[in-house]
Amino acid sequence: MLKTDIAKGFKNIQTEICHRLSEADGSGIFQKDSWTRDGGGGGLTRIFTGGSIIEKGGVNFSEVYGATPEKILQSFGIREKSDFYATGVSIVLHPFNPHVPIIHMNIRYFEMDQGLWWFGGGIDLTPHYVVAEQAQWFHRQLKNLCDRHDQSYYSRFKKWADDYFFIRHRNETRGIGGIFFDRLNDKPKDILYKFAEDTGKTFAPVYTELMHQNKNESFSPEQIEWQKIRRGRYVEFNLVWDQGTKFGLETQGRTESILMSLPPMASWAYNYHPDEGSEEAKTLALLKKDIDWINIM
Amino acid sequence: MLKTDIAKGFKNIQTEICHRLSEADGSGIFQKDSWTRDGGGGGLTRIFTGGSIIEKGGVNFSEVYGATPEKILQSFGIREKSDFYATGVSIVLHPFNPHVPIIHMNIRYFEMDQGLWWFGGGIDLTPHYVVAEQAQWFHRQLKNLCDRHDQSYYSRFKKWADDYFFIRHRNETRGIGGIFFDRLNDKPKDILYKFAEDTGKTFAPVYTELMHQNKNESFSPEQIEWQKIRRGRYVEFNLVWDQGTKFGLETQGRTESILMSLPPMASWAYNYHPDEGSEEAKTLALLKKDIDWINIM
Repeated sequence: MLKTDIAKGFKNIQTEICHRLSEADGSGIFQKDSWTRDGGGGGLTRIFTGGSIIEKGGVNFSEVYGATPEKILQSFGIREKSDFYATGVSIVLHPFNPHVPIIHMNIRYFEMDQGLWWFGGGIDLTPHYVVAEQAQWFHRQLKNLCDRHDQSYYSRFKKWADDYFFIRHRNETRGIGGIFFDRLNDKPKDILYKFAEDTGKTFAPVYTELMHQNKNESFSPEQIEWQKIRRGRYVEFNLVWDQGTKFGLETQGRTESILMSLPPMASWAYNYHPDEGSEEAKTLALLKKDIDWINIM
Repeated sequence: MLKTDIAKGFKNIQTEICHRLSEADGSGIFQKDSWTRDGGGGGLTRIFTGGSIIEKGGVNFSEVYGATPEKILQSFGIREKSDFYATGVSIVLHPFNPHVPIIHMNIRYFEMDQGLWWFGGGIDLTPHYVVAEQAQWFHRQLKNLCDRHDQSYYSRFKKWADDYFFIRHRNETRGIGGIFFDRLNDKPKDILYKFAEDTGKTFAPVYTELMHQNKNESFSPEQIEWQKIRRGRYVEFNLVWDQGTKFGLETQGRTESILMSLPPMASWAYNYHPDEGSEEAKTLALLKKDIDWINIM
């Protein structure tokens, strides 16, 4: 399978996702911002504006190549100079309504001269308020996705997401997890591409369903305050622990595309603890690793 | 000079600063939150609440000791186990009015069994709108402070602040800098303590003067939007580049005290650029290293 065909497939997924999300939101559109990278390649960042459900978000496509950054070579213990090629789609959406969850999806392909190549990606959900039925439904969709490709995937990648999307300094997960995979290369490239592609295609129907289920829920100013606090935690994860973000910023990636994931209106309060027994406290108690969401109820 | 005397001196500075800031704000008070550290020591975090000028902020004092964390030993290439002792005061204040600058001050003392010891610290200012006269006045106060101790300090520590408070992925400084020093141990301990103490004592009169000069300036909703964007950049610096924050979070420091520096109501917008010729664009043009603020006008 040609790398350029993978990029073409990913670009089509971006287009399809933008179309589906605009339709589901009902009023917002995805503006286009195309950019080039010094050293090779570029991307198309699509930024959502004028939304009625989605307050801020974007879908980024990139296809970059050239001399492999020193940091990457080091991490593989490769001493000779080398070229790389990477393409991917990534999305983060922050909704207005605190009852609609934040979502993140990413699929990516990487290769280097030395014959190294792999796929990575995942989908994870960050509800401001965890609703057990919806969390279960979300994980079941991901399990169905995984099971279509490999019976071992869901349990492996669900655990990987729990471990990855963990805010260590808070001892809490970013949300209810989902699936995460990286450096996947143990099957032929076209087989693994199909899994990455299916991940990309599963995203829109799953998220638009969650949008529709929650968009008409009413909310209070206190719930908006909680949403801002949770958005603050999202910022903490992305800037302190997310390997992709750290790596991108350290290797002079395109800042605006990397930080597209950050929310509008985040807030920090000193030593904030929700009242015992409150909905916020119930959600916090569910931001833990290793919850069996598939069988939660 | 005994380490416990340094801690006592620092604690007194915390008390004095809290007193002066409450007085200057007119309505806020500093609540006390004392905490202990697993492994040895603890601190007193004082959180400002009910302010009329300061929206969020705190003054943290800590005195911690015990087995030196592995990460610190590594950074000095020390292989044998060792104990450490560290004490310090740190402050960040976020005002309501975008015409009042954000400020940060820190003084700290560190020692280890091996006879290693040093002082570190600094004061730096982050105006949402840079006013040249005030920036000049601020730097002149810091130069006066430095000159009372060593004629070489201001130029060295001003440059150090420019280099330290730099948001690399944005190619902009966090604010107009100030002074920053670390691992200072080239004079007797009591002499360097006097400099650290003077830094602590210089903070309140300088900042309260800037509060008073700007607190009655009127502001628009657009200026509040800009303030939120600048607060977002403050978050980016602290979470991505600030060595103290990174180190604290990685070594399981007290999260709430470390992240006390984060603002209420920060915001991110995609690819935000202020209009050409606007006050915001003028400020952005001044968020650069190596500006000679002392002679700016």
